[in-house]
Amino acid sequence: MTAMPDAACAGKRPCVALLSSVLDMSYLAPAFREAMPAVDLRLGADLGALDEIDAAVCWYPPPGVMARMPRLRLVQSLGAGIDHFHTDPDLPRAPVLCRIVDSDMAGTMAAYVTWAVIHRQRAMGAYLASAGAAHWQEQPIVPPGRHCVGIAGLGTLGVACAQALLAIGYRVRGWRRSAKHDLPAGIESFHGPDALDDFLSGCNTLVCLLPLTPQTHGFLNGPLFRRLPHGAHLINVGRGSHLVETDLLRALDDGTLGAATLDAFAHEPLPPGHPFWRHPRITVTPHVAARTEAIAIARQTRDNLATLDRGARPAMAVDPALGY
Amino acid sequence: MTAMPDAACAGKRPCVALLSSVLDMSYLAPAFREAMPAVDLRLGADLGALDEIDAAVCWYPPPGVMARMPRLRLVQSLGAGIDHFHTDPDLPRAPVLCRIVDSDMAGTMAAYVTWAVIHRQRAMGAYLASAGAAHWQEQPIVPPGRHCVGIAGLGTLGVACAQALLAIGYRVRGWRRSAKHDLPAGIESFHGPDALDDFLSGCNTLVCLLPLTPQTHGFLNGPLFRRLPHGAHLINVGRGSHLVETDLLRALDDGTLGAATLDAFAHEPLPPGHPFWRHPRITVTPHVAARTEAIAIARQTRDNLATLDRGARPAMAVDPALGY
Repeated sequence: MTAMPDAACAGKRPCVALLSSVLDMSYLAPAFREAMPAVDLRLGADLGALDEIDAAVCWYPPPGVMARMPRLRLVQSLGAGIDHFHTDPDLPRAPVLCRIVDSDMAGTMAAYVTWAVIHRQRAMGAYLASAGAAHWQEQPIVPPGRHCVGIAGLGTLGVACAQALLAIGYRVRGWRRSAKHDLPAGIESFHGPDALDDFLSGCNTLVCLLPLTPQTHGFLNGPLFRRLPHGAHLINVGRGSHLVETDLLRALDDGTLGAATLDAFAHEPLPPGHPFWRHPRITVTPHVAARTEAIAIARQTRDNLATLDRGARPAMAVDPALGY
Repeated sequence: MTAMPDAACAGKRPCVALLSSVLDMSYLAPAFREAMPAVDLRLGADLGALDEIDAAVCWYPPPGVMARMPRLRLVQSLGAGIDHFHTDPDLPRAPVLCRIVDSDMAGTMAAYVTWAVIHRQRAMGAYLASAGAAHWQEQPIVPPGRHCVGIAGLGTLGVACAQALLAIGYRVRGWRRSAKHDLPAGIESFHGPDALDDFLSGCNTLVCLLPLTPQTHGFLNGPLFRRLPHGAHLINVGRGSHLVETDLLRALDDGTLGAATLDAFAHEPLPPGHPFWRHPRITVTPHVAARTEAIAIARQTRDNLATLDRGARPAMAVDPALGY
């Protein structure tokens, strides 16, 4: 592999556009200028000459813009998911599409999920309520080895959560679309639709960390909840559209589920009148389970461009056939 | 090593007394009868002939009783700590004194400590409060790799907590009385009084898991708090007497400490009027960080007696010179 830039790039400043129809992307500018001092950064209403743009960093990108960027080599998602690209049906096929996955993000997600598992499994909410009433009230203690956490979606984030929970002593099982051969020891592994029922039947807590694709839209629904052990705890740190909201409310009300911890919603911010907010067995957090820092996004964009310039494929490139 | 019982024990049913001046120990009886079907179990006011008793299982034992048990070979604590034996100044020196440490207990403790670290470090209490007001309010997110948890006391429980926190990505340092050479990788290790200041200076969260000895009584005091980074979080899962309560309140009020999570108290249950209950930056839990199950106590008592009968020393025997 040669370190020489290819002809198209020689001597040219890298040109990066920041594109979003929902977010003011200007908060990213200082990080990009730090990571790529020579960057020609384009953002806002006037993107300048579109045929100069090498990379587009996107969060719910405006439709049709990237189709008019003939030199676009890299489309960089701002997060681990790429479902937000549905806002641009004219997303060109030629550029490589990359997700962000960094170790900070995996650790941040693992901390959130671990907190959510323990908070429910050890009845910490009950202790907080008792303490508020100055009341010394013990709760039953079940050792972690007798509680099984199932993780649907065993990508980088799912594996990080599994390792954290295993280190405490929880039993951990995982389910994914296809077999994965480099899973850490200790994870009981299931894959494919045929193994889903078997997987679900042992999950005292179910964590959703699936990518959002047409196949996983509405994955968390009434029939699925009924395959879990009665009174299970659902943690959704995937996307809001994984969940059928009315099915969740029904399953909590009839006892099929014991509790839900939700960090992602079909409509964000969750509207003030939404029934999830004040439901006694739903914990709502404002999409904070994990977040990637601006500097990590800038560095990965820079590194992905450099990888492409060497003629190689970035490690976090998305497989278009799978959609993640 | 021979498996033959020694002469004193041949043919005799093991005789075990359950002794406490504060707790009704009868809840342990079914577990002892399950683990040791031949046991001659003594509890309550009438212990029968004291010269028949082989083992005493104790929690704050009544004073003087064990001194009248000439065949006593094992004094088994009900927990990881042995400080409760101070209630019996006439504790005989001849029997071997053993602590309980089981893997369930280590995992249960690791879950509690991990919850307490994340709950504060990720501002989960603020999210719970916002959710109660149907308010979508993000909080700053600091990745776990930029938060250091210091664990004072690196025994079985401390190491279990360290491994759980490392698996999430927290930085972990530990301090103990003397050097320990088989610590898991990733723990920054400190030992001895001379290294204490250095250790404390890097602890964003400090976890106390020390044994309670005359040397560690009042360990958590004002001068120590001032050696921590400003606004640090204190987690006490040791004993209530490790903490100087008035120093804690002062340190929270002047900002030296940012928060405290307390599971052990000098007087339990914590009285309803105690200022800890309603302090906005103190989380009180009712001594539930870890608990050993009855069956684990019964099995370890049986196994420790068997080890002594083989002429060996139980692994969890206490060093009388150290006091733990």
